[in-house]
Amino acid sequence: MTRFLLFLVLFFVVSLHAADGKKAKSKGKQRTIGVLIFPGVEMLDFAGPVEIWGNLRKEARVVTVAKQAGEVRSAQSVRLVADHGFADCPPVDFLLVPGGFGAFEALADPSTLEFVRQRSAQAELTMSVCNGASVLAAAGLLDNRPATTNKAFWSQCIAYGPKVKWVPKARWVDDGNIVTSSGVSAGMDMTLHVVARFYGQPRAERLARDVEYEWHQDAAWDPFAVMLEKGK
Amino acid sequence: MTRFLLFLVLFFVVSLHAADGKKAKSKGKQRTIGVLIFPGVEMLDFAGPVEIWGNLRKEARVVTVAKQAGEVRSAQSVRLVADHGFADCPPVDFLLVPGGFGAFEALADPSTLEFVRQRSAQAELTMSVCNGASVLAAAGLLDNRPATTNKAFWSQCIAYGPKVKWVPKARWVDDGNIVTSSGVSAGMDMTLHVVARFYGQPRAERLARDVEYEWHQDAAWDPFAVMLEKGK
Repeated sequence: MTRFLLFLVLFFVVSLHAADGKKAKSKGKQRTIGVLIFPGVEMLDFAGPVEIWGNLRKEARVVTVAKQAGEVRSAQSVRLVADHGFADCPPVDFLLVPGGFGAFEALADPSTLEFVRQRSAQAELTMSVCNGASVLAAAGLLDNRPATTNKAFWSQCIAYGPKVKWVPKARWVDDGNIVTSSGVSAGMDMTLHVVARFYGQPRAERLARDVEYEWHQDAAWDPFAVMLEKGK
Repeated sequence: MTRFLLFLVLFFVVSLHAADGKKAKSKGKQRTIGVLIFPGVEMLDFAGPVEIWGNLRKEARVVTVAKQAGEVRSAQSVRLVADHGFADCPPVDFLLVPGGFGAFEALADPSTLEFVRQRSAQAELTMSVCNGASVLAAAGLLDNRPATTNKAFWSQCIAYGPKVKWVPKARWVDDGNIVTSSGVSAGMDMTLHVVARFYGQPRAERLARDVEYEWHQDAAWDPFAVMLEKGK
């Protein structure tokens, strides 16, 4: 009887270890999240998602990339340092393209569009926040695909993608390897959705809770779409 | 009759101009928002409020300050550049103290506490996000006053202020010249409240809408306080 109990306990302990090992293996890959920054980038467009990715700890590594490595001033005047320039940027698993008024200048730069095109093709996933979608559109990445962008400057933003199937009412649009979100704050909801997709719903819920964020989990939730109806 | 109508129209036009002038005068002062940053500062703690302050445009100027001017790495690994060191920081109207794990190291530094004490005494308003409240508490600024801090590390955070009247369930606590907020994301709700207080409710609502943010306007709204009850 004692032997049997000992066997049971041992079996239990070994099973736990094996399960842990499996868990560790499936979650073991560290993804590199490449965040494009440029002069006039909107703070929250990238800082919201980065807050989430940064808290995934060992499973995600955030790197910032600009045309050239070094200082970049955001639209809100806070100065950032790009870890890499386009030329020395390491491979990225997830590419994040934020918006801001500076995005309209960034998309007018052929080397930026080329970088986005090239890195998006190699990435597992490309994400945009706000008029970061205009950058993806200008790069031709959204042609004939559904996407969304911010609501306050809707017509200005969608002008860069005449072939895009723009979705006017959506917090975010998940189209497989490209996920676009609505304006500024929407980037956090989109990021948590992506975390849920790749790392599981409980993980996303816990991350949201830890940063005391009320996550809007419904991609169709978009009270700000009313701005379009008012013709703004 | 025609003269009377003309008089009425003129009176109306002049009144509008006068009202505009008054409005411009009361809103004319540009405030300097001094944002303390330090190694390990939590991205969203400062970037959320900065997103709002930065969009007030001409009425607010955001400056970042650290022990020394220059590069500072956030907890999420994005690198920032402090505009000023403690020694050359210009006068600030509003002082913002964010949190993050780095805040526990920052509050162990006497020169940081001295800077916060000195600048808070001169400022119109001092704000904290998350365990930025621990920094204010360690500086002695919250003694015998109501304040809140983040819910995920509550007991660790409040340990720095044994004389503080800690409020466990609050999105933010407005105690006149000091406003403290709960964890990370709560900083945005607190900032919009402060904007409403100083610049009017419509302005705050418009700023929230422009960044597509669902503002929690009730300071008592705090679903994350449940973390305390669970004894985490």
